[in-house]
Amino acid sequence: MNHSQQQPYTHVVELEVEQSKSYRIDLHEITRMPQASGYLWNDQMSLQMNCQGYASVMFMDPEPSKYSTAPNLEAQTFIQPETQYYAHYPGRFFYLKNLATGELISLPFAPCKVMPEVLTFSQQQQRLSWHVNHWGASFDLTVALADKDTLEVWQLDIVNDTEQPLQLSLISYFSVGYRSWMYQSGFYDDDSQALVCKAITPYQRLQDYKPDGQLKDITFCLSEKPPTSWCANQQAFEGDGHISAPQQCNQATLNNDLACYETPVAAMQFKLELAPKSNFSNRWLFGATTSVAELDKIRQAYLENEPSIASCGADIESRFELSGLDADIEAYANCWGSRQIRYLTDTNRLTTDPQTRNLVQDVLGLVYIDPDKAKRQMVMAMQQQRCNGEMPDGILLTDSAELKYINQVPHGDHSVWPLLWCQAYLDETNDVALLNEMLVFSDSSTKQPFWRHLELAIEHLLSQRDERGLSYIQQGDWCDPMNMVGPKGKGVSSWLTMATACALKSWCYIVEHYLEDYSPLKLNECHRLYGQINEAVNQHFWNGSWYARGITDNGRLFGVASEPEGQMYLNPQSWAMLSGAASSAKCFNLLYEVERRLNTPYGTMMLSPAYTSMVEDIGRLTQKYPGVAENGSVYNHASAFYAYALYQVGEHQHAYQALKRMLPKGADALIRGQLPNFIPNYYRGAYYQNPDYAGRSSHLVNTGTCAWVYRMLIEELCGLKGFRGRLVVSPKLPASVNQLSGKRQFAGATFNFTINRSSVQSVSLTMDGLAISGQQISDIQSGRRYQLNIEVPFE
Amino acid sequence: MNHSQQQPYTHVVELEVEQSKSYRIDLHEITRMPQASGYLWNDQMSLQMNCQGYASVMFMDPEPSKYSTAPNLEAQTFIQPETQYYAHYPGRFFYLKNLATGELISLPFAPCKVMPEVLTFSQQQQRLSWHVNHWGASFDLTVALADKDTLEVWQLDIVNDTEQPLQLSLISYFSVGYRSWMYQSGFYDDDSQALVCKAITPYQRLQDYKPDGQLKDITFCLSEKPPTSWCANQQAFEGDGHISAPQQCNQATLNNDLACYETPVAAMQFKLELAPKSNFSNRWLFGATTSVAELDKIRQAYLENEPSIASCGADIESRFELSGLDADIEAYANCWGSRQIRYLTDTNRLTTDPQTRNLVQDVLGLVYIDPDKAKRQMVMAMQQQRCNGEMPDGILLTDSAELKYINQVPHGDHSVWPLLWCQAYLDETNDVALLNEMLVFSDSSTKQPFWRHLELAIEHLLSQRDERGLSYIQQGDWCDPMNMVGPKGKGVSSWLTMATACALKSWCYIVEHYLEDYSPLKLNECHRLYGQINEAVNQHFWNGSWYARGITDNGRLFGVASEPEGQMYLNPQSWAMLSGAASSAKCFNLLYEVERRLNTPYGTMMLSPAYTSMVEDIGRLTQKYPGVAENGSVYNHASAFYAYALYQVGEHQHAYQALKRMLPKGADALIRGQLPNFIPNYYRGAYYQNPDYAGRSSHLVNTGTCAWVYRMLIEELCGLKGFRGRLVVSPKLPASVNQLSGKRQFAGATFNFTINRSSVQSVSLTMDGLAISGQQISDIQSGRRYQLNIEVPFE
Repeated sequence: MNHSQQQPYTHVVELEVEQSKSYRIDLHEITRMPQASGYLWNDQMSLQMNCQGYASVMFMDPEPSKYSTAPNLEAQTFIQPETQYYAHYPGRFFYLKNLATGELISLPFAPCKVMPEVLTFSQQQQRLSWHVNHWGASFDLTVALADKDTLEVWQLDIVNDTEQPLQLSLISYFSVGYRSWMYQSGFYDDDSQALVCKAITPYQRLQDYKPDGQLKDITFCLSEKPPTSWCANQQAFEGDGHISAPQQCNQATLNNDLACYETPVAAMQFKLELAPKSNFSNRWLFGATTSVAELDKIRQAYLENEPSIASCGADIESRFELSGLDADIEAYANCWGSRQIRYLTDTNRLTTDPQTRNLVQDVLGLVYIDPDKAKRQMVMAMQQQRCNGEMPDGILLTDSAELKYINQVPHGDHSVWPLLWCQAYLDETNDVALLNEMLVFSDSSTKQPFWRHLELAIEHLLSQRDERGLSYIQQGDWCDPMNMVGPKGKGVSSWLTMATACALKSWCYIVEHYLEDYSPLKLNECHRLYGQINEAVNQHFWNGSWYARGITDNGRLFGVASEPEGQMYLNPQSWAMLSGAASSAKCFNLLYEVERRLNTPYGTMMLSPAYTSMVEDIGRLTQKYPGVAENGSVYNHASAFYAYALYQVGEHQHAYQALKRMLPKGADALIRGQLPNFIPNYYRGAYYQNPDYAGRSSHLVNTGTCAWVYRMLIEELCGLKGFRGRLVVSPKLPASVNQLSGKRQFAGATFNFTINRSSVQSVSLTMDGLAISGQQISDIQSGRRYQLNIEVPFE
Repeated sequence: MNHSQQQPYTHVVELEVEQSKSYRIDLHEITRMPQASGYLWNDQMSLQMNCQGYASVMFMDPEPSKYSTAPNLEAQTFIQPETQYYAHYPGRFFYLKNLATGELISLPFAPCKVMPEVLTFSQQQQRLSWHVNHWGASFDLTVALADKDTLEVWQLDIVNDTEQPLQLSLISYFSVGYRSWMYQSGFYDDDSQALVCKAITPYQRLQDYKPDGQLKDITFCLSEKPPTSWCANQQAFEGDGHISAPQQCNQATLNNDLACYETPVAAMQFKLELAPKSNFSNRWLFGATTSVAELDKIRQAYLENEPSIASCGADIESRFELSGLDADIEAYANCWGSRQIRYLTDTNRLTTDPQTRNLVQDVLGLVYIDPDKAKRQMVMAMQQQRCNGEMPDGILLTDSAELKYINQVPHGDHSVWPLLWCQAYLDETNDVALLNEMLVFSDSSTKQPFWRHLELAIEHLLSQRDERGLSYIQQGDWCDPMNMVGPKGKGVSSWLTMATACALKSWCYIVEHYLEDYSPLKLNECHRLYGQINEAVNQHFWNGSWYARGITDNGRLFGVASEPEGQMYLNPQSWAMLSGAASSAKCFNLLYEVERRLNTPYGTMMLSPAYTSMVEDIGRLTQKYPGVAENGSVYNHASAFYAYALYQVGEHQHAYQALKRMLPKGADALIRGQLPNFIPNYYRGAYYQNPDYAGRSSHLVNTGTCAWVYRMLIEELCGLKGFRGRLVVSPKLPASVNQLSGKRQFAGATFNFTINRSSVQSVSLTMDGLAISGQQISDIQSGRRYQLNIEVPFE
């Protein structure tokens, strides 16, 4: 690449909003953002493609599995942040050799990394694509996923735009990787016109044996057009060369090498003779299956019955749209946000035992996108509650699923989330019938109504407190790796205490507004307890200017100014605002300190200063790299809580700033190194300790952030919030915005809305031309379309 | 490389036996044997270096660990065969840039893979080295291991042999790899002059927490001379380039980049100005430690107190030496064989829970090398026996060790091996005191004498038989993955039945020759049972021309001619000869069939034809790749049993052929792809099914083969076998050998011996010039040296 040709940063990331509302993000100079990625998914799998051509794939079989892996046996682990790429990282490469000049390039960019004249990487809703110009030809490479199968569909279109014939050797290279020390092979199957790589997932215990056909152990690459030659052997493909200049790419044809207990690869060669102005197009199907016999059906379904990749997937219409905001936030609201929520909830984060807090919060987002599905998911989850009211650490999605990894560690917060979810769900749907649905427990088949499940969750939370009324943290709360504060059964969490108050507050709200015939005495007791908890929070955790994070097994208060590191944590500040524990004066104080100690251009850090050495009564969190993940990154999930809390205390402007900082934009996109097609799990923090790294994206799409952001855009920013079947209108526009318009589906009706600042004294509504008194719209008729015009006063 | 310059194959591998008896193997054309490797070890670690510069390291911490790993999170698994190398496989590379010409090469060969004018890879006992000539300079690169620490010592000596100054940029590159998703970093520590890479071994459960300093989580590279510049960041090192042409290697200096939660590397640059005929030398210490504070001590111990790498380690004098055999076998007998046994027993195969059968057989080899240590190891192992006589699946070596992987699968054979070991040990040492040593059990602190432990093992073996007297196989016997023959508790193993007879035979031998006051009635009963077992074997397993392998849970006899695959297995044939079940006529029959069905130029296959699909009543074995490991490879451990059995039935010539085929030699070394510095776990089999791959080495040093081979060389080939403190002389020379000489330590004395064919009618001995009648030497005086001359008749 030629550095002198670099464009100013504002040109690097272009967000194009097409007429069709089919959103697309284009990246024009990939070497300036080499980690940029896009992602696709279906119910069975996800594919995250780095703009250079590296591919991270995972599918459910039914446990998370891969059909394209590293060249060595990978550890089975959850999806990690900040992927470190290297030459043999799994990829989808299209080598192109110009037979006239001998020049070898590869699309998209890796592994040859020769910069073509033009190279653009694009994320659309249903596909990822690269547009390349080189040698006077244009190359359009696109990938989409099958709707149901574990299958990537790739299409390459080449047009010779010159007046000369163009002779190319095209070699498609799909990484298969080291699959198994028991069995791995690769060969070309003439019948199916596919490169077939078989493996036996390695195991040793008899109980782990899977009969043939039970696992999708076959990786295949099926070509629409028959290849001229092929190679199934990774090392033979490279020969004396390197992956950036493979020996076989310099030959007239590939060697048709088998892989016999060697690392396979799916490489095929196509000799192209492109006359002037002529074109070439081919599709490849790359995925996993249980048997070679399936390949015919797959070819039929995806190649013979489909004319091109354009028929893969359809953009989904959103139930909520708006225009008038900053372009990045607007695109997130209209496209990327709901998309991210659907990804999380369609795939359940690619695990069979999602953490309860993750599942419930992801499904919180779904309330605004697909409330029926949200309800089904929660009904499933609540039936895994124990009789004593305790929610388990993870929700098992299949019969064979087991609690793994972090779900084997006891956390105290899982019973909080169903209450928060239910309040949002009832407000949005007014589906009070849910409260009386009869559900079993994991340890009892005796059914109880949904509301009783919630009450039991509250009772459980209340039971897990010490004599001061503070909640035991066990081996972690929302913060997984805070595992050594309370393992002896004494340590308490300020956040969990506040979250318990929030759950209680939600419970009271649900009882008061949606549940009939609940005992007034019990409700009064809930109010009393709620007040008590907030008092206890203020008594034990308020440390002069902000709330501490907890008290360890040894009685040590932490998250306070007197400590060398971890002086201030964000979550207790946010949740003290949410729970109502923080008075206005305290809010003023703590917001000042958050601004001073935690805010950065990339968002609000989760704690500061980041720990640089182990603190044995806090735990694993302090062993993480400073500024990474829970150890003081800009952890977007926590930032979302913070923004939500800011909205609750009337800090609209700050809340909007917090939202905006979650998305890469302009200059800082290069520092973050990520496109605005998703909000990542975190950006590096430790802003004052390690400024050179601050802002770097984790590139991890899995985060509980997006549900809260989506909710805020609808309920807070636009102020279009449900309540007992009515729509309560109370916009909280940022100062920079004077005009908004959009669409909101609610109660079966469609509201086209405008929000305008005007000289009104208070929020004023007209609907279908008629003025509405108050800020509530009732008697909504399902199926109708309304035009709702909202006028709000200038600040 | 220039293929036209290739030498005939016989020049490729040169075995040089130096005057000093310091054995060395040189490989001159590494691209013709690119997987060739050598290995080093100390009590804590092993290092297997591929001739190109790729490094496989493992150390005990106390569980097996690595300080130099792949660029992604590796699965924790046992050492795998047939390592698949790739560009970022962990390596030790020394980039050299000629500043006059700009040419970049790397030593030893990877990753640049530019062939220098001269390149020789050498294995010596205590070091591995490469000699290179290029640019008129010579480069000598050597690695040795520290005696005790987890530490590689590297030395590079450069001599400018020209009359011109030579300006070089030398960049040492030691792979550190992706270490942890919790914490990883790399930086240069000025105080210790070391590149320091810290990591936290990732974990989630509280019980897995290791306080600081408990694990050797720091990888360091300490240089004798200070570098000009450094880089601790793998991706930054490569920049826009590749590992074969890193961007920073083309700069005047490296960028002194940190690794901050990024994949670290230990790269250092040295600017060299070599005047004509001048030289440069530097040493690097690369290893793992618990804290940076240790680095000073390490520098002191290995650099300041040691003048050069030559002081690392000392060759060990062997208790057994011979000369007069084929060079490859002779070198194995005198150097590589005992070395391989010492590696296995010093490291316990780099696990904290070696399989019982492995440990006992490795220690069988140690009987001839270090009998005191062999005894200590067996005393430790026997104290893990259960009261019911059953030996456990693995022997736990540390307090925290647990049975892992294959040791969680119940196998029926572990109680066999102590009997076989003890017979050999008593013959070699006459240490009858061992039999009365009082040892506890794993489930009882009540001590019993060693002999009673053995008797209990026999009783246990005898109890695990069906009504026909055949031994239940459970989920495997010697053959680990034969796991579905008997999981229901019915399936039986012919091999295990024969092995039980062998154990009983050894027990009778021990009782008759070494144990006083044993009940004659019980001994008689043992003899009777032994005869009964052999009868049952012949009744149920002899299938006309050979012995079947077992009868499955469903009553199906397998390992017979009527099956499509797995018709014949080697082990039942070998052990029927060892147990005495096979009559002479049966031996004749089965040897003919082994020759016809299992023999290959690379040794005898373990079974044939190899399975190509799952057989559900045999098991995991049939899922392995055909010709690999237990599925029909030339599995050397089984070949060793076969050779040992051949010696027992008087087939000396065939036995010697079997031994010779275990070692790469001449033409076939290129096919095997391995140097004769160790006998590998297996060579690929499936000779008739997949001939292109047959003979390929697994390159896996871990194998139970070498103990048996070493024993055979001493006791069978040279025929110098102990018995009740006497030396029984009965050489079994191969036809090609008429003269042998050597040295054998026995009973504290040293025997210098010669074996010559002559016109004698039977074996004739003279000792120190005096004729000895019979074939036994008794009254051996410890500390004395004897000259033993043996004459044997021509065949």
